Amino acid sequence: MFLAKVTGSVVSTQKVDEMVGQKLLVVEPLRVDEKKRDRLQGTGRTFIAVDTVGAGEGEVVLIVQGSSARFTPDTKTLPIDCAIVGIVDRVTVESDSIFNAND
Amino acid sequence: MFLAKVTGSVVSTQKVDEMVGQKLLVVEPLRVDEKKRDRLQGTGRTFIAVDTVGAGEGEVVLIVQGSSARFTPDTKTLPIDCAIVGIVDRVTVESDSIFNAND
Amino acid sequence: MFLAKVTGSVVSTQKVDEMVGQKLLVVEPLRVDEKKRDRLQGTGRTFIAVDTVGAGEGEVVLIVQGSSARFTPDTKTLPIDCAIVGIVDRVTVESDSIFNAND
Amino acid sequence: MFLAKVTGSVVSTQKVDEMVGQKLLVVEPLRVDEKKRDRLQGTGRTFIAVDTVGAGEGEVVLIVQGSSARFTPDTKTLPIDCAIVGIVDRVTVESDSIFNAND
Amino acid sequence: MFLAKVTGSVVSTQKVDEMVGQKLLVVEPLRVDEKKRDRLQGTGRTFIAVDTVGAGEGEVVLIVQGSSARFTPDTKTLPIDCAIVGIVDRVTVESDSIFNAND
Repeated sequence: MFLAKVTGSVVSTQKVDEMVGQKLLVVEPLRVDEKKRDRLQGTGRTFIAVDTVGAGEGEVVLIVQGSSARFTPDTKTLPIDCAIVGIVDRVTVESDSIFNAND
Repeated sequence: MFLAKVTGSVVSTQKVDEMVGQKLLVVEPLRVDEKKRDRLQGTGRTFIAVDTVGAGEGEVVLIVQGSSARFTPDTKTLPIDCAIVGIVDRVTVESDSIFNAND
Repeated sequence: MFLAKVTGSVVSTQKVDEMVGQKLLVVEPLRVDEKKRDRLQGTGRTFIAVDTVGAGEGEVVLIVQGSSARFTPDTKTLPIDCAIVGIVDRVTVESDSIFNAND
Repeated sequence: MFLAKVTGSVVSTQKVDEMVGQKLLVVEPLRVDEKKRDRLQGTGRTFIAVDTVGAGEGEVVLIVQGSSARFTPDTKTLPIDCAIVGIVDRVTVESDSIFNAND
Repeated sequence: MFLAKVTGSVVSTQKVDEMVGQKLLVVEPLRVDEKKRDRLQGTGRTFIAVDTVGAGEGEVVLIVQGSSARFTPDTKTLPIDCAIVGIVDRVTVESDSIFNAND
């Protein structure tokens, strides 16, 4: 899995039937700052993920990829390879808090 | 999943029987412009995807990869790892519209 | 899936029993030239793929990766993650022919 | 699989039910130093892995990705694509010990 | 699949039960030299693979990734995503031998 920031959303009217009603969010993967290790930083990459937990723009989320994206109650039979499975409250690295959703 | 632009098509006569009749499109993955975040830009990569939604050249589409590409009614038993599962109408990032198929 | 050029072959005598008799080809993934978009160019990467369609050196082929590589009649139970599922005749990008096997 | 160093942890309260009670660790993939080949070095990448073996911060671990991350007794039905399946004691490269957990 | 050189080994005492008794080797993926195409060269990347064919340090091997790594008699239920399925004797590129295990 990886951490990502929800940056936006996608609307698609003409799509596979199974995808009707699924919320599609734009997410940017994050990584721990390589040198200072004191914050999360964007990677510049863009993924589209199905939301299963009610995530919103600006939130940091936990993303699962591949066949495992179908292992939630809401996504079992969907043709998807990327799902949000958690909203992140805190990230701690080397004993320091580097992200807190309440800050 | 990721966003991509349909740029072309592939013809293959000599192929695995299961692939007969499948439309193979050339797609270029897109990402949100890293700095301005006001448009989608090409990544220069090239994938070949099976079309399940009637997509055409120039359209922005939603792509699923891996085993999940077999989770549409049309692709269940195909030896494919990449399928178009939606045609994109709009992409919104940081509350701004950065792509609209009608523009 | 992706396009690739068959560049060579691999011989392995000591291998998993299921692999006996399988033809292993060296392939280099191709992409559409980023700027001119008028030809396929090599990526410098190297994959080994099982051939299921009788491909030969110099041919451009369609490659499937991951679990889907096991979804051909010949590869169902093989420990492989990469198979050639088609020989490419033509590739068209932005309405221009950029590859033709007969040229 | 790949080697990684456990660098931290993630707390997520609002998540898919199946994930309740799972320990989520921040890990940085490692590689063998390219030139000297005498140590493991960080890659700067960031993954989130479910811990199945009681790993702690600072330890070097063995990571499995994809559907195989669900092939441990604790993770069979989880929507995860990354799990820690071992704590590494020693790594030997070209007959030299390049990592020893006891040093 | 890809070609790799076996460069070392990993010892892990505290691990998932299914992994007990499995030989874990350090491998470096190889590619065909991009320009001269006359030899295999290292990529600097590091993977850990389960050995199913009795490979040893210095040998060039064939690696399978993902769920297919579980499709050998020895690995069916293991939480692994990378296995050695063959020891390579010869690699031929553009009709020239670029690797021969007996040289």
